[in-house]
Amino acid sequence: MQRQSSLFGKTNKEAKEFESLNATLLTKAGFIHQEMAGVYSYLPLGKLVLDKIENLVREEMLKISNEINMPSLASKELWSTTGRIDSVDVLMKTIGANAKSYERNNVEYILNPTHEEVITPLAKEYIVSYKHFPFALFQIQTKFRNEARAKSGLLRGREFRMKDLYSFHTSIEDLKEYYEKVKKSYFIIFEKLGLKEYTVLVKASGGDFTNDYSDEFQVLCKNGEDIIYYDDKTNTYYNKEVASKDILHNGKNASEAGNIFILKDKFTKAFDYTYQTKDNKKGDIYMGCYGIGTSRVMGIIAENFNDNSGLIWPESISPYNIHLITYGKIKDSDIDKIKKIVEKKNKTILWDDRVDISMGEKLKDSDLIGISKRIILSEKSIQSGGVEIKERNKDKSNIIAIENIDKYI
Amino acid sequence: MQRQSSLFGKTNKEAKEFESLNATLLTKAGFIHQEMAGVYSYLPLGKLVLDKIENLVREEMLKISNEINMPSLASKELWSTTGRIDSVDVLMKTIGANAKSYERNNVEYILNPTHEEVITPLAKEYIVSYKHFPFALFQIQTKFRNEARAKSGLLRGREFRMKDLYSFHTSIEDLKEYYEKVKKSYFIIFEKLGLKEYTVLVKASGGDFTNDYSDEFQVLCKNGEDIIYYDDKTNTYYNKEVASKDILHNGKNASEAGNIFILKDKFTKAFDYTYQTKDNKKGDIYMGCYGIGTSRVMGIIAENFNDNSGLIWPESISPYNIHLITYGKIKDSDIDKIKKIVEKKNKTILWDDRVDISMGEKLKDSDLIGISKRIILSEKSIQSGGVEIKERNKDKSNIIAIENIDKYI
Repeated sequence: MQRQSSLFGKTNKEAKEFESLNATLLTKAGFIHQEMAGVYSYLPLGKLVLDKIENLVREEMLKISNEINMPSLASKELWSTTGRIDSVDVLMKTIGANAKSYERNNVEYILNPTHEEVITPLAKEYIVSYKHFPFALFQIQTKFRNEARAKSGLLRGREFRMKDLYSFHTSIEDLKEYYEKVKKSYFIIFEKLGLKEYTVLVKASGGDFTNDYSDEFQVLCKNGEDIIYYDDKTNTYYNKEVASKDILHNGKNASEAGNIFILKDKFTKAFDYTYQTKDNKKGDIYMGCYGIGTSRVMGIIAENFNDNSGLIWPESISPYNIHLITYGKIKDSDIDKIKKIVEKKNKTILWDDRVDISMGEKLKDSDLIGISKRIILSEKSIQSGGVEIKERNKDKSNIIAIENIDKYI
Repeated sequence: MQRQSSLFGKTNKEAKEFESLNATLLTKAGFIHQEMAGVYSYLPLGKLVLDKIENLVREEMLKISNEINMPSLASKELWSTTGRIDSVDVLMKTIGANAKSYERNNVEYILNPTHEEVITPLAKEYIVSYKHFPFALFQIQTKFRNEARAKSGLLRGREFRMKDLYSFHTSIEDLKEYYEKVKKSYFIIFEKLGLKEYTVLVKASGGDFTNDYSDEFQVLCKNGEDIIYYDDKTNTYYNKEVASKDILHNGKNASEAGNIFILKDKFTKAFDYTYQTKDNKKGDIYMGCYGIGTSRVMGIIAENFNDNSGLIWPESISPYNIHLITYGKIKDSDIDKIKKIVEKKNKTILWDDRVDISMGEKLKDSDLIGISKRIILSEKSIQSGGVEIKERNKDKSNIIAIENIDKYI
């Protein structure tokens, strides 16, 4: 049970308004703090939500892959091998402390915006026999992109959190089979995140790698930076690259929360990564990559789950399960009773124990924070027979005996 | 239960030998992969150990502070405010993608090696009234230091993991009280990590900030980069800066796993951070900072817990609790029985299910990996009456019925 009086990151209805709704809501509620454009600190409530999103993603990923952690720093040689040191314009580079001029030679490290350049040579060192294919590796990690415009809050960060998964196969067919498995896994994740009704699969270009489409998991979102187009003849969404001209009137704003991509042999070829076939020959290796922007997901959820009074979190990623609000003279033993019942169910409590502010202010703060399940304990509620259940997104409230709250939580 | 056949990061007794013992042991056992000097990937086993160390540290820190997460990128203005942009020689800097020359103006971001420059202005935005002091915030996060020499494996990284805690107080006395609380917390952590008998408190200089000593938590370690000196008259260890001349013969190698430091008002003064006193005046704020190098701790444990055959993990941070080794024709139902008994106790299993290698090789790999509790299930063990218990660091083994393994685990 966390006492709100000792929780860092006070709510502040008067806090700065940002261009983006998610940054405004999350800042006023004390979840995040903007350090610079596209760069945020996660305060205690925000850290809890981000952890919950990432643990939920991790749980599904562990069913189909192994978890690793690759560094943020990469050598410039790796990024030169694929040529992306020049072609990726958002690449952040560090320079030697004593360098006097900016030349290629003085670049020391690349800050990875994605990890194909790292994982391909890594995999090559460990797995070369047909016996050990296919395999897949993921990480949940901080990424860097020097975005020209970073004004959409958590929807577009210069430093951001991402789950990236990479798979390696000895045939395109096997890759496509795994690709479908990831697709299913992603739908489960977005459903668990409470985003099912907002998430659509959008056909996008396969890039240089394939004539097939790739798939984007777009979440409908009024302030999303992407526009997706619905074709009611085929019941399919397309992104701008591939939308046919006759559906361009039918655009909707969305934010890309995940994508799954067939890379074919672009990276394995660049790093000369082949496998040993059953009859001792060299075989080509095919790769897929699959991302979910975990900090972006937090922004998307803030954009979609709110009202005029603040945030309303889906329970799966709510910073705490229960917001307990106490007011006036109450018995410690009643608080203890509530604590025991809630914690027995492995649920967590944020307890607004503050004594110097009014009930009205407490409720306004609670609206900003957005924990759906709220229990109010006051002299008045005790006189009425117990605690008042006042859910975040419902007008009505009702009184129940403390002993009965286990049915509610 | 993780099948070893699908675990990425195979053991390799023939893998490259490094200058440092920890890098060699952890690489051969498939826990880490060196990307560059001082920069490592954590493979699945290594990621599990690192997570366990960090969760154990987190658990203790949450008892005395709030968890947040600050970004790796900081503005150069913050680091100019304290002057440390010039004085910290290991500072990594990024440069604008289009910069043509290396001038101060072209430096875009600092990669934080520590976060005083970020947390002080952050705290200032949220907490200014005497009512809300003292408070403390911690994070567990990736840090960057451009070390000139990074040849000690996880003991000295250019990119590394660290827990950093910062506390804010309205008096030196209050700061000192909290400082003692952190000291106690650190001793609990090092005990839980299995490092109690190796950990010593070492007096070091208080730097520019204080005439008092600061305290280092040094772990005795043959390949540690620090030398600490024991004064048997006072029963105290000192580091090189403050050791008196007559104890310099009594040096021991150690590695600094944690430190606790009184910063006084160095940073709060630099950022003009004062608080409002009860009678509405401006009061000075005093800070402490407290670090634990979580990836370094992993290296230190590898250095201290091993034998000629490989690693031997303390149980609190072992990648899995049980190494189940099966060999020959065995019944699925026996494996299921073991799985159920172990998982009922919330313990995890690494199952060496590989069919194409000998029992001798399996044991050698198991020695390298170093999970202390090992259960062998083979035709032979079943004939003898159950499973063979063969602990990693004991020569003898004994047979017990499968039903009785819950007493062992």
